Amino acid sequence: MIILGLDPSLSCTGWGVIRAEGSRITHLANGQVPTGPNQPMAERLALLQAGVASVIAEYTPDRAAAEEVFVNKNPQSTLKLAQARGAVLAACGAAGLQVNEHAARLVKKAVVGTGGADKHQVQAMLKVLLPGAAIAGADAADALAVAIADAHLSPRY
Amino acid sequence: MIILGLDPSLSCTGWGVIRAEGSRITHLANGQVPTGPNQPMAERLALLQAGVASVIAEYTPDRAAAEEVFVNKNPQSTLKLAQARGAVLAACGAAGLQVNEHAARLVKKAVVGTGGADKHQVQAMLKVLLPGAAIAGADAADALAVAIADAHLSPRY
Repeated sequence: MIILGLDPSLSCTGWGVIRAEGSRITHLANGQVPTGPNQPMAERLALLQAGVASVIAEYTPDRAAAEEVFVNKNPQSTLKLAQARGAVLAACGAAGLQVNEHAARLVKKAVVGTGGADKHQVQAMLKVLLPGAAIAGADAADALAVAIADAHLSPRY
Repeated sequence: MIILGLDPSLSCTGWGVIRAEGSRITHLANGQVPTGPNQPMAERLALLQAGVASVIAEYTPDRAAAEEVFVNKNPQSTLKLAQARGAVLAACGAAGLQVNEHAARLVKKAVVGTGGADKHQVQAMLKVLLPGAAIAGADAADALAVAIADAHLSPRY
């Protein structure tokens, strides 16, 4: 079972691919798709979509996972995030991938053991769970975390 | 100059294609891309993206236009709308299309002459401006309206 974790955002979408066999998890790849703040919105969204589509084509995951949407207090931030998410999920849908959604708290709990863990604790635990993996950045780390959480939280697929 | 107007929404995205030559506007095509409420989100977004991509491939517009995002009071509605918009704009970006955004009020003003016009007034005026055009539905009508507005509001492209 190959799982693609995604952390969609307009400026930089993180992705991480793991293999889950029973309770054994191994790292396959991770990376980030950045876009430029001065590029037109449609171009940025197309970059995110194409970037995720090419990851799917290369690693042929069995399913995908992302955190549930966080509704920001700033409506403009929510709009940007949701538009990015729409482009990224469309890439998954086009490949016939199911996308499981998990609450941020459950992702942290699955990875660190507590829903109140901070980013540093998550990143430290990733080094333990995925030894030797070179992680491309904070967004890729979040994507790997949601992939690992998905392996634990959706075991029956 | 061929202009693609878009009215993105998750349940049904409207599109309309017009030709604008100076102040002369002619109807080329319009339609709607529906998705099912019980389909997975990623699949719905992929349908919207593919639907708009195929319209772009068929009519090769020079540019696209959509209304500025309306931030709904219900955050869940805003999220759905913005995700749909992300998938639709990604299709435009992938085709290298610029997407002009216009405030809803300016669209109504450009089509009917007053920013406070209601949907029925807009639809009645579309019959006058695009004689003989069979309009696929309310979402397609909104898409044609934003295309016509774009012809008026962004004449210099």
